[in-house]
Amino acid sequence: MNDLNPVRLIATKRDGGALSPEDLTALVDAYTEGTVPDYQMSAFLMAAYLNGLTDAEAAALTDAMLQSGVRIDLSDVPGTKVGKHSTGGVGDKVSPILVPLVASCGVPVAKISGRGLGHTGGTIDKLESIPGFRTDLSTEAYRRQVKDIGLVLSGQTGDIAPADGKLYALRDVTATVDSTPLIAASIMSKKLAEGLDALVLDVKCGRGAFMKTEEEGRALAEAMVGIGAEHDTPVVALMTNMDVPLGRAVGNWPEIKESIACLRGKHDETPLMTIVRHLAGEMIALNGAADTPADGRAQAQQALDAGAALDRFRRFVEAQGGDPAVVDAPDARPDSAPVATVRAPDDADGYVTDLDALAIGEAAVDLGAGRRTKEDAVDPVAGLSALKKPGDPIAPGDVLARLHASGAPDLDPVRATVRDAYAFGRTPPEPGPSVLARYTAEGWEDRGGAATD
Amino acid sequence: MNDLNPVRLIATKRDGGALSPEDLTALVDAYTEGTVPDYQMSAFLMAAYLNGLTDAEAAALTDAMLQSGVRIDLSDVPGTKVGKHSTGGVGDKVSPILVPLVASCGVPVAKISGRGLGHTGGTIDKLESIPGFRTDLSTEAYRRQVKDIGLVLSGQTGDIAPADGKLYALRDVTATVDSTPLIAASIMSKKLAEGLDALVLDVKCGRGAFMKTEEEGRALAEAMVGIGAEHDTPVVALMTNMDVPLGRAVGNWPEIKESIACLRGKHDETPLMTIVRHLAGEMIALNGAADTPADGRAQAQQALDAGAALDRFRRFVEAQGGDPAVVDAPDARPDSAPVATVRAPDDADGYVTDLDALAIGEAAVDLGAGRRTKEDAVDPVAGLSALKKPGDPIAPGDVLARLHASGAPDLDPVRATVRDAYAFGRTPPEPGPSVLARYTAEGWEDRGGAATD
Repeated sequence: MNDLNPVRLIATKRDGGALSPEDLTALVDAYTEGTVPDYQMSAFLMAAYLNGLTDAEAAALTDAMLQSGVRIDLSDVPGTKVGKHSTGGVGDKVSPILVPLVASCGVPVAKISGRGLGHTGGTIDKLESIPGFRTDLSTEAYRRQVKDIGLVLSGQTGDIAPADGKLYALRDVTATVDSTPLIAASIMSKKLAEGLDALVLDVKCGRGAFMKTEEEGRALAEAMVGIGAEHDTPVVALMTNMDVPLGRAVGNWPEIKESIACLRGKHDETPLMTIVRHLAGEMIALNGAADTPADGRAQAQQALDAGAALDRFRRFVEAQGGDPAVVDAPDARPDSAPVATVRAPDDADGYVTDLDALAIGEAAVDLGAGRRTKEDAVDPVAGLSALKKPGDPIAPGDVLARLHASGAPDLDPVRATVRDAYAFGRTPPEPGPSVLARYTAEGWEDRGGAATD
Repeated sequence: MNDLNPVRLIATKRDGGALSPEDLTALVDAYTEGTVPDYQMSAFLMAAYLNGLTDAEAAALTDAMLQSGVRIDLSDVPGTKVGKHSTGGVGDKVSPILVPLVASCGVPVAKISGRGLGHTGGTIDKLESIPGFRTDLSTEAYRRQVKDIGLVLSGQTGDIAPADGKLYALRDVTATVDSTPLIAASIMSKKLAEGLDALVLDVKCGRGAFMKTEEEGRALAEAMVGIGAEHDTPVVALMTNMDVPLGRAVGNWPEIKESIACLRGKHDETPLMTIVRHLAGEMIALNGAADTPADGRAQAQQALDAGAALDRFRRFVEAQGGDPAVVDAPDARPDSAPVATVRAPDDADGYVTDLDALAIGEAAVDLGAGRRTKEDAVDPVAGLSALKKPGDPIAPGDVLARLHASGAPDLDPVRATVRDAYAFGRTPPEPGPSVLARYTAEGWEDRGGAATD
């Protein structure tokens, strides 16, 4: 550390050069310790934003952030632990369905999840809408639960990758958030701390996602798979569509309710369940419980059909302090009745041809389901349900969506936002693929047509 | 100021956009006041470094820094006040010769100069090597002296462009110094505060200068002339050669001694005096005392020949508290005898063909003439004199340079640096031009061949 020269390292990145792993580690360590000040790190981050990071630099940055905190040791849990991460979307209730499903197939899953910010929700907020559910598990409780019931989903703690937390806060106020290698390193530093042996990524692309284009999504998938390879952790990335909300519910409790219905086998032919099955197939194959992702998908379908996935969800809710009664009688949860209805306009005659995920995400935030800033509280029951989706037949006056809120939000602008999010036409739209592409250390594989499995 | 959004402004520059003058002014004002923190400004500076600033942005930045402090009002001094700025070089004693020379031709010159850092010297350090000379003039004393004797040369004070001082300190530690528009805005904000009506720039290019290439020099000249135009201040830039030291002395007192000899007409045919005459011609023409720069050059030569320039230098020294006796008997100054001599090696037979300005500048710093960091003190008598220059005949054992120091520096490495700075050959080198090009708001004019006027 004695001969660390931050100005030289900033200048190297500024001039398009690459830092050695040793230099990058020393820089991040010194920043975490406070000997390199914010103003030098923000200059470095802007240079990295504009000139990029090499794969080796992204891996070194990941490692430095990972090493800044606790790395959970799950070596006493038998079997290959498989993690899952989504880049976030609207109505993205994949984790509460997928994790119990995969665990019921014998794959141990330990996962730390985040809270929602802006138009995308967070799994932790969703689970906390179950009365009594706790997400602040100690490391010991986290480890024990994976061992006992094969799955755990907990919230972030300050001892996981604190350097990432400090860097993220700085990026947030210096316009350096939206950089693929910085995003990839941030995600991977936290995932690698969770105690996993392999990882599945759901890289969402489209207007409701952070990555608006396939090109951006591909760059992020490649960066994260590359960092995984440098850390001897196999990573499979599925790129999935996020132009339209996933499922028919958006909001914390509305999505948990829909997740329970999915676990009961109610929505098997939807894009949501197609994505769940594909991710499950990859996780089961990565664990070794299936030879191929297709075999894994078949196992997952059996677990759904047999009720094993729903049963595992019930045990999971109970293990984390939640009220298991909601699993069997979701409608009994207090305050879950809709407060208003959005209806189709007079010229809506034929089919829903499009639904803008971003607008629906914004409407959910307006109802109280999400946060505008990190300090905001969320309303667990707020959101939308019974959403009409592209391909649905429609007539004037039909219900487009039901609105939920326990506060008293101004409903007129929300109604307008929801109505404007829809497009209608005389013929049903051609369904597009839900799983757009698959990326592993071996390269890309296009998956167009996976919408129907 | 209420709706200033620094993250949005950083993002605009990051994405290659341009800020409005209002936004840039608000950002710099908020930074100067401390409401925008260092870490946001350094991210902005790195984005500006990598994506550049438009002419309008550079002018707005200059103006914001200028307005942050005092702007000296010399409106009660009759005539067009002409300033001068050099980007810095090795042996650059132009100002102590030029300013009295031009003043003796009736052109009022008010100039604030800097101290040296690294291998380039500073006019203030040079003048302070005259026993008693004061450079810490009050604004009132500065104004009075221009009125009384037509010239003043003083040091920087904290009330001139304090925003520039704060920004420069941040750039220094975030690898964002070396950006043409940021350099141009920094220089111009200070020059425009000096009370001048027009400005001549000596943009030095070559291995002993900050601008190593003509391309870099041209970019800086264009940026500064552009900012001048936005502030209704005519600027003429001469691009001059800085591959070889100017003159035969490098160091504070050694250069003042050489300046006095130049004012006595001893070195009229040198590149140094060619550059002095050309700059003088421009300043006299900008003032209106001559119709053309060529006429101005002729007036300057007359002032030198008549002793008027030397006389004005003597009055200037006396006015600022210096001992005028040194002007007539420079050898009487204490501690000015050489401490060592560097001699030509055995294979030096024929002519000096090259002399590296950067190496000579470094040797001067090693002798104590310059600063490695801003906190270092300088030795006023340290430096080199009697330097052999390209074109000089040479034989083994001839004196290449005499070394001066009042401390006890390690002389062996200095001797080696000086010896290695030289190249020798059997035939004299072709002399190159001293004034490479001229730039005004009307455009570029090449000046190759100006070496011999």
